[in-house]
This record gives sequence, structure tokens and C-alpha cells, in this order.
Amino acid sequence: MRGVVLHAPGDVRVEDREDPRIVEPTDAVIRVSATCICGSDLWPYRGIDKVDGPSPMGHEYVGVIEEIGRDVSTLKVGDFVVGSFFASDNTCEICRAGYQSRCVHAVGMGSIGTQAERARIPLADGTLVPVPGEPTPEQLPHLLAASDVLGTGWFGAVAAEVAPGKTVAVVGDGAVGLLAVLAAARLGADRIIAMSRHADRQALARRFGATDIVEERGKAGVARIKELTGGLGAHSVIEAVGTQESMQQAIRSTRPGGHVGYVGVAHDVTLDGMQLFFSSIHLHGGPAPVRRFLPELIDLVVGGAINPGDVFDLTLPLEEAAEGYRAMDQRRATKVLLTI
Amino acid sequence: MRGVVLHAPGDVRVEDREDPRIVEPTDAVIRVSATCICGSDLWPYRGIDKVDGPSPMGHEYVGVIEEIGRDVSTLKVGDFVVGSFFASDNTCEICRAGYQSRCVHAVGMGSIGTQAERARIPLADGTLVPVPGEPTPEQLPHLLAASDVLGTGWFGAVAAEVAPGKTVAVVGDGAVGLLAVLAAARLGADRIIAMSRHADRQALARRFGATDIVEERGKAGVARIKELTGGLGAHSVIEAVGTQESMQQAIRSTRPGGHVGYVGVAHDVTLDGMQLFFSSIHLHGGPAPVRRFLPELIDLVVGGAINPGDVFDLTLPLEEAAEGYRAMDQRRATKVLLTI
Repeated sequence: MRGVVLHAPGDVRVEDREDPRIVEPTDAVIRVSATCICGSDLWPYRGIDKVDGPSPMGHEYVGVIEEIGRDVSTLKVGDFVVGSFFASDNTCEICRAGYQSRCVHAVGMGSIGTQAERARIPLADGTLVPVPGEPTPEQLPHLLAASDVLGTGWFGAVAAEVAPGKTVAVVGDGAVGLLAVLAAARLGADRIIAMSRHADRQALARRFGATDIVEERGKAGVARIKELTGGLGAHSVIEAVGTQESMQQAIRSTRPGGHVGYVGVAHDVTLDGMQLFFSSIHLHGGPAPVRRFLPELIDLVVGGAINPGDVFDLTLPLEEAAEGYRAMDQRRATKVLLTI
Repeated sequence: MRGVVLHAPGDVRVEDREDPRIVEPTDAVIRVSATCICGSDLWPYRGIDKVDGPSPMGHEYVGVIEEIGRDVSTLKVGDFVVGSFFASDNTCEICRAGYQSRCVHAVGMGSIGTQAERARIPLADGTLVPVPGEPTPEQLPHLLAASDVLGTGWFGAVAAEVAPGKTVAVVGDGAVGLLAVLAAARLGADRIIAMSRHADRQALARRFGATDIVEERGKAGVARIKELTGGLGAHSVIEAVGTQESMQQAIRSTRPGGHVGYVGVAHDVTLDGMQLFFSSIHLHGGPAPVRRFLPELIDLVVGGAINPGDVFDLTLPLEEAAEGYRAMDQRRATKVLLTI
């Protein structure tokens, strides 16, 4: 089959990869209908995360089950399914508490590489959620978004304890940040402040439910958030970047007793204990347990209540993945969908 | 009046200080019935926190109201009261959310110095909670404990989301750690692991409700907690020290999705963002909003349900405060009560 392989920073190739097969009796093999490029794929692409030899890429996917292992009991060949970037058994104590991304048997899908025609999905019963009926082509991008960026933005909003009556600020206007805005709106936030200085992303943030835009950053950004919140700071702040600056932006924009939900993969971030102590905030985040939210998110998409796939602003065939990486790296695209 | 003043690291003196008086119409002046020395008083005593000239000391207190400002409406002269280490109006939005230690008008009582015969209490209506009736001499230490160490341990337990069905670990066997054990027991924890290597403190922890003692620290301590929790880590961990080692101990002992409540004032603590991200824990803490819990804690003490004052293992007259500081510094005493 054809699949995306990263050979070295900046060197993305689409090449022949071995066809996946059932290895464990709990596996499924899917034909990937659509996949995409994640902001986190740019870390190794840019050489910030080390690349150890040729690495298959991708961890977002929707597709159709082609084969199942003998222990798979809740899925059948032909089901259209959505999964997340961690395979999880969904039965262990950690999964049952809602932290499937930290399942005691978790397998990172990035190591499998779903930017490909087919993919092996470990722990299929726990990992995959079937979509009722046959999705329309129009639904495909929205379902694909649920696989990671929507689920991650949603977790950010839940981790930040977004609720009716609250003012929410979102740090980061990438796909995850934009979908955190959508999640905050669905979760009933009174006011949603999107921090963005790009006109097109501001427009999408407004469509997703942002009520205010703040273009300032750093101290000026904090001052602006305080100005909008009676001097106190936001109740809930979602951090969707993963840098020192964005974490500081989030922490300092939150009122005492408020909540920061952080979902940007933290790179070179160090937090000062004394600052954190006297901030009196709640801090929660990590790799989003997307599986927790998938059934609800799929329902919302299938029912037409949300259109998270609107974050895709470039669609390319799998064979042109290298151009997709370049476009995201150069910020010419927010999020690239790869058709197969 | 007589009061404790720190002149330089290690140089504690009891000397004449100016009598407090009503400055703002919302003030009260109390005759201090008992006060105590806090673990956090040792930071400047040891020269770790800078001492800028002679500083009045102390922020814990119970006492009798001697005078009230003209705007004080809920208290009267003669009331026996308990307050916390932050004066707070208890009416602002932050107070109403339960974060009185971050009240928009907060005044740190440490700047006033309650290790003295009398003390001015700003924002008296918001800060002070009257004790019904006249407390007995036996109740005095228990009420005094509510002023800080019990309230702080309690907040640690609440911040760590202690609840029935959960396993709790407590890092730190000082007064706050021991009272966090008591709080965890009152809040219904299934299992309470006290991390301590001192026989006398272990015994008190057991009396307060600890079900297990772990003497190991560092990696061995984490391994032991995991061993006691099916390999997963504790649901709730209370950090009551404030060092790099204790924060790491707390974070690493917590299961994914679990909660760390940290109440040790963080000194030279830095947290690695990537480690925190992949820990998937909740982190909450800071200066305890003791005022939130005072009415409930006073009820428990007056009703005889809890005896938090058992953490005091040395009682001295105010004039001998210097010996009290030495005893705590040298760990000859866990917590020193000063009688007046």
C-alpha cells in the first residue's frame, strides 16, 4: 500500500509500505477513507522532535473495516469507524475513569502511521466507534476532525471546566484552538474570547462561537483579557499551542480559582512553582482522551449540529502529502486533509 | 504590647510593639488568646526568604474582639473569633467563588504579625468567624489549628478531590500534612497513605486516619505507592512541603486523571511542561482559602468531632517564642503553640 514516511526533517515521501495485517486477535485492519496532517506532525518535520530513521506518519483517521481479529466482538467488516490517536482497551480502570489516552494498554497510533491506504488498529473494540449508517462525502471531514483536533479542543474545554455563566479565553488559533472555541460554545459558555491575529482564523472563530477577539499577546494580551473580565481574568482558559509563551499567556489570563485546560503538546515549557502557587488556578491537560468524547461528537456531526471539518482549508490526495506538510509548515494552511 | 519580631535570620525577639488601633472603619482589634509558629515562618527564619529589616511575625490567631470599626456589623466586642492568614472581604466575586485568600482586597496577616498580645484585623466582617459560646481551654488549640494548618490541610484534600472510594497519599508529615490526613479521613477516603519516616508523626497520622505508612522517598516512594494501588498510582495526592522533591513525589505518585492538591509554599520548584503534560493529572493548590472552610471546621471542633490541635507538641509563653522557633527549626517540635 501507499503511505507517508518521514525520512529526515523536511523530507516527507509517499512510498510503498507493507500492507497491514492482523497481529493480535483484538486488532482490526481498516481501509482509510481520509486522514490528515496534525500540528504535532510538524514537530519532527521541523526537526524539533528527533527523527530516528524513516518513520511512518499520521495518527488521525476514519475508514471502513476490512478485517477483524477473532476476539473483536462489537465491530464487523464494512463498518465505517472513527478512532483516536491512542488505541485503548476502554475497559481498564484508567479508561473507565475517562483517560483512554493513558490506558494501561495504550498504543500510540503515530507509531503505526495512518497517513496511508490502510492501517492496523490495535484493541479495535475499545478504540473504534462505528458511525451509524453510511456517512455522506460532506460528513467525512467533520468525522475526521472528531478523530483528533475536535476531540482535543473538546477535552481542552472540559479540562478548563467550561460551563454556562463562564467567560472562556482560547490561546492559539490553530485547528485545535478553533475547535476549542466550538466546544466552548457547545458547552454553554457565556463569552468566548479567541486570541488570534489572523483575519481568516478570526472569522472562523466567530463562526464557531467566539464573541470577542483579542489580537494582543504577552502582557498586553493578559491586560486585555483582564479588561474584558472586570479585572479578574477569565474563568476558563484553553491553551492550544504548547510553548512557554502560550502557557504563560494562559496561566496569567486566568482568575484565581479558575481553570486552565492545556492541550498543546508542551515543548520546552517550564513552570515556576511559586508563580503557579500564587496563581491559585487549576491546571489540567495532556494528551486528550478523545475516545471519551467520540460517541457524543459523532452524534453531533451526524445530526448536523456542528461542522468541525471547516478547519480543513486544504485538501490534497495522499500522493501530495509532502506539499501538505509544506503548506502547514509555512502556515499557508491551518489543517490539511488527505484524500485516499 | 509585646510581640514577636524577626530582626535577621535566626534572630527572633519578643519586644514592645505599638498597640494596634482601628485604622479603617471595617477593622477590628482583637486580644489574641493563642497564636502559633508556622512552618512557613521558618523560610525567613532560615534566611531562605529575604528579611528586610525588623519584621513582626505570625499569621495564625484566635482571640476576643476588643474594639470594632464603625462599619463592622456582624461582630461585637467580646466575641471569640477565629480568622485566617488572609483578611478578605468575603463579598467580592473571587471570595464568593471560594478563593478568599485571593480576595481582591486581601491583606496578608503576616504583614500585621499576630504573634503578639493584640492584632488589628482588616475587613473584620469578612475575615472573622465567631465561635458560638465561650470555648473551653481544651478547645483553644483545636480552634487555633483551624486558623491555618487545619484549613490548609483541608484545602489540600479538597483540591486533591478526596472523596469516598478513593486512595489518597499525603506527601509531608508536618502539621499540614498530618491534618491533611485528618481531612482526607473526614472527607471519606477509602485508604490514606501517609508518607513519613518519623515514628511519632506516623503514630499521629494513624490516629488521624492513615491506613498505610510509606517510609520510602523518591523513586522508591513512587514504586511503593504504585504497589499499593494496583500499579496505577493514588487517585488523590496532597503535597504539603513545597520543595522540588515533594512536588515530584506528588506528581509521580498520582494516576493519570488523578488530582494533586498542593499547599506547601513552593520554593525553588520548577515543573517540566512535557512531564506534566504526559502525567495527565489535575494540579490545584496555592495559599489555602481557609475562610471558605472555617464555619464547618469550627463546628467540627466545637462538636468534638475532630482534635486538630493534637499537632501542637510544644506550648510556650509568647515571651519564649525564640525557643519555639529554634525547636521547630531543629525539628524538635512539629508545631509550637504560644500562650498569651
